[in-house]
Amino acid sequence: MSLDGFVAGPNPSLEEPLGAGGELLHEWAFAAASWRESHGLEGGEANADSEVIEESLRTTGAVVMGRRMFSGGAGPWEPDPRRDGWWGDNPPFHVAVFVLTHHARETLVMEGGTSFHFVTDGIEAALEQAKAGAGDQDVLLAGGAGAVQQYLKAGLLDELQIHVAPVLLGEGTSLFDRLGIEPLGLEVTRVIASPSVTHLRFRVPARTA
Amino acid sequence: MSLDGFVAGPNPSLEEPLGAGGELLHEWAFAAASWRESHGLEGGEANADSEVIEESLRTTGAVVMGRRMFSGGAGPWEPDPRRDGWWGDNPPFHVAVFVLTHHARETLVMEGGTSFHFVTDGIEAALEQAKAGAGDQDVLLAGGAGAVQQYLKAGLLDELQIHVAPVLLGEGTSLFDRLGIEPLGLEVTRVIASPSVTHLRFRVPARTA
Repeated sequence: MSLDGFVAGPNPSLEEPLGAGGELLHEWAFAAASWRESHGLEGGEANADSEVIEESLRTTGAVVMGRRMFSGGAGPWEPDPRRDGWWGDNPPFHVAVFVLTHHARETLVMEGGTSFHFVTDGIEAALEQAKAGAGDQDVLLAGGAGAVQQYLKAGLLDELQIHVAPVLLGEGTSLFDRLGIEPLGLEVTRVIASPSVTHLRFRVPARTA
Repeated sequence: MSLDGFVAGPNPSLEEPLGAGGELLHEWAFAAASWRESHGLEGGEANADSEVIEESLRTTGAVVMGRRMFSGGAGPWEPDPRRDGWWGDNPPFHVAVFVLTHHARETLVMEGGTSFHFVTDGIEAALEQAKAGAGDQDVLLAGGAGAVQQYLKAGLLDELQIHVAPVLLGEGTSLFDRLGIEPLGLEVTRVIASPSVTHLRFRVPARTA
């Protein structure tokens, strides 16, 4: 997230899926050895930021994401140019990924342990399937903003980890937007700071939805 | 600022000037010995958060703030119930404060070293007067959100210090809102974390307005 709250810049497109300036949010990750390894790339730095990503890869047993994050598209799959996701044949997840969509579709098995499961019966069903798939590991809600807002409003998140990049984007997709919830206190569980990013981790208290 | 970017909750009023839930953003300050001392109160904790406030009090030679922060009002002064500010006879600034307004008014000299100067010829003029008043100390732009946005857009801020409180307000006054600027990279100069708040400090690069 940028300091001004955006997880993508304005005008996302097939050529620039993170919108104008959105890549600036991920520079810390692009430079990290663990991120590069998960994307089949070599090199990178084995620093504190890399450890945060490595921890997430190690503890995540299943991923949930919104349709927009998966392909950038909406509506029926047939005309979606990124209908198999952004990441090529060997996506960086290496676990089962549950994609929220209104359009049913067969499971897509990729290389490297990633499979995409398309869930049409809502966020709670997707979470249940992901929990079953994760075993005793964590379920990671990867994004995007719309999915995070839905799960937060429904009271279904146990933790938030926000990577605050030192950039003002000025415009774009707001992570939290205006949730319209009652004020909700969080418990700070960890702060890791580097020159490139500040990793803020919180426990979300249980509450009625 | 709340994690979702608000510096006040919704529906600010004379009774609740920070809006619904807005006090949650300042709990870390209310508990700090230095904040309490600057407000003429006793007690409080001498912790890392208190040191951040103490540093700010020690290095600040003059303050700039918007009219809304000063009184919660707008328009002519006469009917404004908080026309002398929120803080009583001995405000917590203890230096010259330059208030941005469209309505001219005599300087107001308070107890404890605080004086309120009302500047009607714009943000640059207010900054120049504050710089002259501050001598070799810093000028602190205290807020509110509208004033911060104006100074940021004009390229007049050297540093940002954001105190991120572990709370989601869900609605309210957005600190950065949608600035509409080109993406702007910041330099992380300091991160201080406590269970109550994370103090993020950045250098803002020079740029053309």
